[in-house]
This record gives sequence, structure tokens and C-alpha cells, in this order.
Amino acid sequence: MVDSPAARPDAIRRHNLSLVLGQVHRDGALTRAELTQRLGLSRSTIGALVSDLTDRGLVEERVPSGGPRAGRPSHVVAPHSHGPYVVAVDLDVTHVTTAAVGIGGTVLARHVVPAGPEPASPEEVARQIIATVPILQALIGRNDPPVAIGVSVPGTVDRHWGTVGVAPNLGWRNAPFGKLLAELATPRVPVVVGNDADLALLAEHSRGIARDCENVVYLIGRVGVGSGIIANGIPLHGHDGHAGEIGHNVVDASGPPCHCGKHGCLETYIGEIALLTLAGRPQPPSDEVIREVFDAARDGEQAALNAVKTVAESLGRGLASVVNMLNPERVILGGSLSEVLDIARPELENALDRYALDAPGQSAQLAQPSFGSDSALLGAAEIAFQILLSDPVAAPILVKSATMG
Amino acid sequence: MVDSPAARPDAIRRHNLSLVLGQVHRDGALTRAELTQRLGLSRSTIGALVSDLTDRGLVEERVPSGGPRAGRPSHVVAPHSHGPYVVAVDLDVTHVTTAAVGIGGTVLARHVVPAGPEPASPEEVARQIIATVPILQALIGRNDPPVAIGVSVPGTVDRHWGTVGVAPNLGWRNAPFGKLLAELATPRVPVVVGNDADLALLAEHSRGIARDCENVVYLIGRVGVGSGIIANGIPLHGHDGHAGEIGHNVVDASGPPCHCGKHGCLETYIGEIALLTLAGRPQPPSDEVIREVFDAARDGEQAALNAVKTVAESLGRGLASVVNMLNPERVILGGSLSEVLDIARPELENALDRYALDAPGQSAQLAQPSFGSDSALLGAAEIAFQILLSDPVAAPILVKSATMG
Repeated sequence: MVDSPAARPDAIRRHNLSLVLGQVHRDGALTRAELTQRLGLSRSTIGALVSDLTDRGLVEERVPSGGPRAGRPSHVVAPHSHGPYVVAVDLDVTHVTTAAVGIGGTVLARHVVPAGPEPASPEEVARQIIATVPILQALIGRNDPPVAIGVSVPGTVDRHWGTVGVAPNLGWRNAPFGKLLAELATPRVPVVVGNDADLALLAEHSRGIARDCENVVYLIGRVGVGSGIIANGIPLHGHDGHAGEIGHNVVDASGPPCHCGKHGCLETYIGEIALLTLAGRPQPPSDEVIREVFDAARDGEQAALNAVKTVAESLGRGLASVVNMLNPERVILGGSLSEVLDIARPELENALDRYALDAPGQSAQLAQPSFGSDSALLGAAEIAFQILLSDPVAAPILVKSATMG
Repeated sequence: MVDSPAARPDAIRRHNLSLVLGQVHRDGALTRAELTQRLGLSRSTIGALVSDLTDRGLVEERVPSGGPRAGRPSHVVAPHSHGPYVVAVDLDVTHVTTAAVGIGGTVLARHVVPAGPEPASPEEVARQIIATVPILQALIGRNDPPVAIGVSVPGTVDRHWGTVGVAPNLGWRNAPFGKLLAELATPRVPVVVGNDADLALLAEHSRGIARDCENVVYLIGRVGVGSGIIANGIPLHGHDGHAGEIGHNVVDASGPPCHCGKHGCLETYIGEIALLTLAGRPQPPSDEVIREVFDAARDGEQAALNAVKTVAESLGRGLASVVNMLNPERVILGGSLSEVLDIARPELENALDRYALDAPGQSAQLAQPSFGSDSALLGAAEIAFQILLSDPVAAPILVKSATMG
């Protein structure tokens, strides 16, 4: 039995609770023995910490699905199946996806709203997101509020204030989006906002394809093209949060106009608008029409396939400067660029070979994200969970169960 | 009095000696009171550490040049004027500069050998460097050996082994240069080798214009163009040491051939060969002919001035992708690019404005290095001193003086 945790808050215990919950959140079911070994704590300390987290409804102990074997069954500590959830939001030009996500990164329910023909204002989008919370609650059969709301935005973000600096493809500038959302939420819950590529990379670095990478870049292709960077194992945001704007590297100053105000930016060659134009498809981009182009390319339709290959070549060339500069071990291509890699890997790799210096070029593995198009959504869930993970004691106790010795 | 240090090595004391020596090495003369405050150690501990370092001939206490004032004179702890020295080498295509550098980064003597018309082999250059050690010793009136030799090389370097991976403008590939030097040195001294731009940035980050920068890029222009990056306050070398190869970003695949085997790399537009070609000057580049072009440009000679402005525009455009990617607070331009900045700052800044995204572009200050063309040389001295700085006890005691209470 542990003491009543709220009565005697203790920095070390809170820290250790955070470590145990973090392990289970990241890696799923773990035995007590694994936790003991990973954290270098005694068995009895791990036992007490697990009991405490169980009391709080954050983890549960269970027999793995393999069933009991000879001898004492090896119970595992797993995220609680009815534990707290967050609302994660992937806000993009073509859609707003909201999801209820449980500890361990499990998507419990999702709701997708395609964007209208005109860009919506920050106020409209905030209202729309808040309106989906009861829908998600109904889908998962819960009426307790989320512990936090995390939002992925295709633009620069001041993470501390949740302000969107520039989101050119949404037409937003200095939008206090986090504040808008926080004011609309009832009951009030914490709101955190991040850049889509940064969050996608966070999800992949936490438990996806970038998990053990020290130097990795995530390039996300949508209407705009953003990138997240991890350098020396640490997210790189730059001097004032604008690092990773590879989408606005100018390929040809006499090229197509870009939402940023310049001409011929890389995203005008590899973004979704470029893909549709090259494939002779109607604008504006929607998730459906983009999917149709990739399906057609896979079916061998020449216009679609050529469009994908052309994008692949421009992408390889654009990536070369990233690879020369950062020498990453892996480059993850998400969003539409993930499909481009899947369909036209040879064209992409050839262009990268042609334009990158040999040594860094050979080190860089091109990969699809482990979480497909959900990377940014799951990254938004990650930042929403960080509040709970950093201090599980501060969270309300949801389930009061018997402690297990 | 401190105990004989060799008899009872003590990890904490060694660590503290390293800290005190590091402060004096970086910042020059400091009072005991300043050292006490900076390091959070007691006055008596600082006194004992300073005495120990004085005994070892590493620091000396003296009255500042202002002379004694009323009351007790405020002695300062300064690098010992006859303390150990390193041999620093700036090896470039056009010259090999060797220097004897004292603690605190003072260049005590230097020796410059212009390169011959044909690139020299690693063996030839190693022999030449070792031959300059007695010349430097004669110039500074010493016959004790350097504590280490540090070498700056215009190419990729495996810092651990001192192997030069690729130095395209020297025509070197997988050259065990550090090993060659170490084998030739009598008596044997440690040899450390680093990339020129990384070392130039190290010097500027230690005590120059990049001192308080967390995100900074140093672009060095010579025959080749290299760059060093500090991201999140840490040097960025990438997955296998090839980060910073911006000089090989392809500007135009149908452009001039580059030593790397590709065509139209940025360095073929902004390196010294490009400058001479644009200015109608004879090849190959030498320090003299490069200086003449910049002098002529300053004097208003149209061909030279236009050449510098054209390089400035290409540089601004090339920098844009670096700035978009890394969002640095400062970009230091060294070597010939420092002169380009000095002469054609408006053209350079206009090109950067035109090609970089607004927000990161506005954050990036363009600056000349504090140490001018000596940045790489002083960075080479820094890595050579790191052995002594990390453990002053391991160095031989050179001067035995009375300890000061």
C-alpha cells in the first residue's frame, strides 16, 4: 500500500511515477521486471509506483494475451483501457481530423471534417474543433473531459503561447489559436499547439521509424510542405522557431507563385497543388482527389504516373540540400510525399544521388512513416499527453481500484 | 599549499583545475573573486587551485597593467606568459599556415608556406608541417615541444582517428593524416585534426562573435566552401560527420564542373575560382591574387567589383536555403566570403531577402568573424589545447615556482 499521494507530494516519487508512466505510454505492456531493469529502481519501489498509477486509473496489470503458462503468470503493466484520453487535432488545408487518443497512443475514435472551398478563420476552426469533442465522447462512450487538447497546424507556432505565426496555406498570421480553443472549451482543459511536421516527427521519434535516430528529418507533403528536424537527438526549432522551412527554398525564382509571397518555392513543385496540376486534375486539392491521383498512378495511368515521377525528381533534388546540410541517417516522407516514395522510389533516389554529395547522400535512408498519415495526429496527442506524463499526480484520479501488492 | 598532485590524483580536484584553467584560457585575466563567483567554489579552494596551476606553469598572478591603486592591489590570474604552447595548422589549398599558440589563444609566432602549383600529398604536407616546428620554436625562443598539434583541413574528418575522408580541393581521400603527423613528430605529441569550418566556428563560439549564440552557421569561403553549424548550442556533425556541405548544394546541374564530381555546386559560384574567373584574373587562386581582387574592388575597378557583387548575389541565394532550414540567429562569413560581405553587403542582403522566407531571413544577422582569417587556425589551437584543458594534471610541470597563499 502507498500513502495517499495527494496528501504528501514528493518530488522524487512524482518524478518516478512520471518515468514509469512514460515507459508504459511509449512501449505499451511491460512486465514489472522490465520496468525494474529499465529504470534501475528496486522491485518494491516499482511495485509501489505501479500500484499508485493503477489507483489513478492510468495503468492496469493484466495477463498477456498468450494466457497463463506453467508457474506463476507473468503479469504486465499496460496503459489502462479506460484511462484518461486526449483530443488530438490534425488541422490541415484539406481537412480537420479530430481523435480521442488513449494512453499508449491508441486512437479510440476519430472524426474527419473535409475543409470547405474557402479557408476558414481561426475562430471558425476553433468552434468546429470544440463541437467535435461531444461527438468523440459519444463514439467512445465517455462523458469525462479530455485531459488536454493537442493541435497540429501547418505553420509556424509559438509553442509556449499556442499562437500560430504564419500558416500561409491557411491564410493565418499571428492567430492566437491556442487561446481561442482554450476559451471555448467547457470544462476548461489545457490546449497545446505545434507545427505539423514537428509533431509528426515527434510521434515517429517516440515510437515509430525514427525511434533510435539522432539525426533525422521528417518532410510532410500536403498543400504546403513542412519539415521537422531532430539534430543531435534534440528537436531543432532554430533561433525563433522557424527552422525546417525547406518548402520555401526557391527552386526557380521565375516559377509558380507561392502562398508565402515569393515564386518558385519547392512546395510549388512537390506540394499537392503541383501534383494535381501535373496530373491534369481539378483544383483545389481535397483528400479524395489526391488519393485518386495516387490510385491512378498505381493503376498505370500515364498522366498520374508521370506527375508522381516529376514530383519525385523535384523532391530528390530539394532533399539533396537538406541531406548535404544535415547529414541525417533517415529522411521520413509523410503525407502525399509518402505515396510519392512508395510509387516512384527509383526516380526519387536517382535525383537525390545526382544532386547530393556522395557521402551524406549514401547515409540518408528514405522511409515512410510508421504511422502513415496519422503521424501529425499522434504527435498532437503526444504533446497533449505531455502534461499528464510529466506529472501524473496532478491529474484527477479517475478510477479507484484495489492496489495490487 | 597543496599536496603533490601526481601522488594522489583526485578526480574532483582535477575537474576543478580544468574549470579554472578553462575560464582563464577563454576569458584571459580574471581576478580570484571573479573565479570564485563564476565557479561557485570557496575562496580557499580557488586559492589552492590557482596555486596548483601556477606551480604547473599554466597561469600566473599579476597586477593588471593599470598599476597598483590605493589599498591592496587586485591581482589577476592570467595565462602564463611562458606556459605551454600548441602548434596550430591551417592547411588550405593556397597555403599552409602553422603557428605557435599560447594558452588564452595568443598567436606567439606564425609561419606561412604558399602552396605549390600542384596539390601536395598527405605525406608531403605532413613532413612540411613537422619541419616548421623547429622554425616556430626558434621564433618564440623555446626548445620544449608543443603540448599538441591541431590541424584544420578543408574536408571531412573523422575526428577520433584524424583521418581525412574527402578533401576534394586537396585531392585527398581517406588519408590517415593525423597518424602520419603523429608518427613524424619527435618527440611524439598528440595530434588532432578537424574540419576548417567546424574549427573556425569553434574559435568564434569560444570567444568570438558567436560566443552567446545557440544557433549559428559559419560559412568559410576558400577554393572550396565549407560550413560549420551549431544547433541548440551544440556542434552539428550529422550522422557520420558530413553535415554542413552547403558548398555542394547544386545551383545549376548544367553549371561548371566541381571537384566533387558533380556540376554547378554552390562553391563553383562563390568559391575563389569563381571569383577569379568572374574578375578576369589568372588561375590558380593564391592568397595574393585573391587579395588583389578585393583591393581592386575597393578601389572601384569595375571588373573586380562586379565579380564581388555577383558572388554576393549567389551567396545570398545559397544562404537562403540554410537560413530557411536552420533559422540561425547569426551567419558568420569567413575567408573570402568575409570580404564579399564587407564590400557587397547590400547585394548579399538583398539576395537573401529575395530568396529566404521572411521570418527566418529577418532573424539571421550576417557577420564577419572576430578573428578574421585566423578563425580556423585558432580553432585548430582550441582542439589542440582541449587535451591540456580537460586534465591539466596530465601535462608535464614546466615551471616550479613558489605557491602563493
